[in-house]
Amino acid sequence: MKKAVFYHAGCPVCMDAEQMMLGYLDKSKTDLEIVHFGEDASRISEAESVGVKSVPALVIGEDVYHINFGASMEDVKNG
Amino acid sequence: MKKAVFYHAGCPVCMDAEQMMLGYLDKSKTDLEIVHFGEDASRISEAESVGVKSVPALVIGEDVYHINFGASMEDVKNG
Repeated sequence: MKKAVFYHAGCPVCMDAEQMMLGYLDKSKTDLEIVHFGEDASRISEAESVGVKSVPALVIGEDVYHINFGASMEDVKNG
Repeated sequence: MKKAVFYHAGCPVCMDAEQMMLGYLDKSKTDLEIVHFGEDASRISEAESVGVKSVPALVIGEDVYHINFGASMEDVKNG
């Protein structure tokens, strides 16, 4: 089972993408963690270190998938 | 079961995202069709009509998720 982390910041685009992840990501193949920067800002540097440039973003293993565009990481940090 | 269509144009970013979709999208909840514009250019107008602005993109029902950025639809049409 591969670790997957969905990073978001609570924006409308983020919430839409979160519903997609919760609804359609295969739970038998991924252990999905949802990280909301508004609730845990300490995870921002972790996300940047793995290559997250904007939210919402899904990280599976070492692969980063930016989904649509809610906010840049700069906006998140200044937010 | 919801119909899902993954549109792409064969670019490296597209192929990475295709592997993610094939690997991690829940097949019990989505009926996934893969559309490669290089093999079926007649689907380009369909994709644009549902709101696809760039590839790779995943459409589930009426929701469009642009994943990373491989190419704009303009590039695809001129491609």
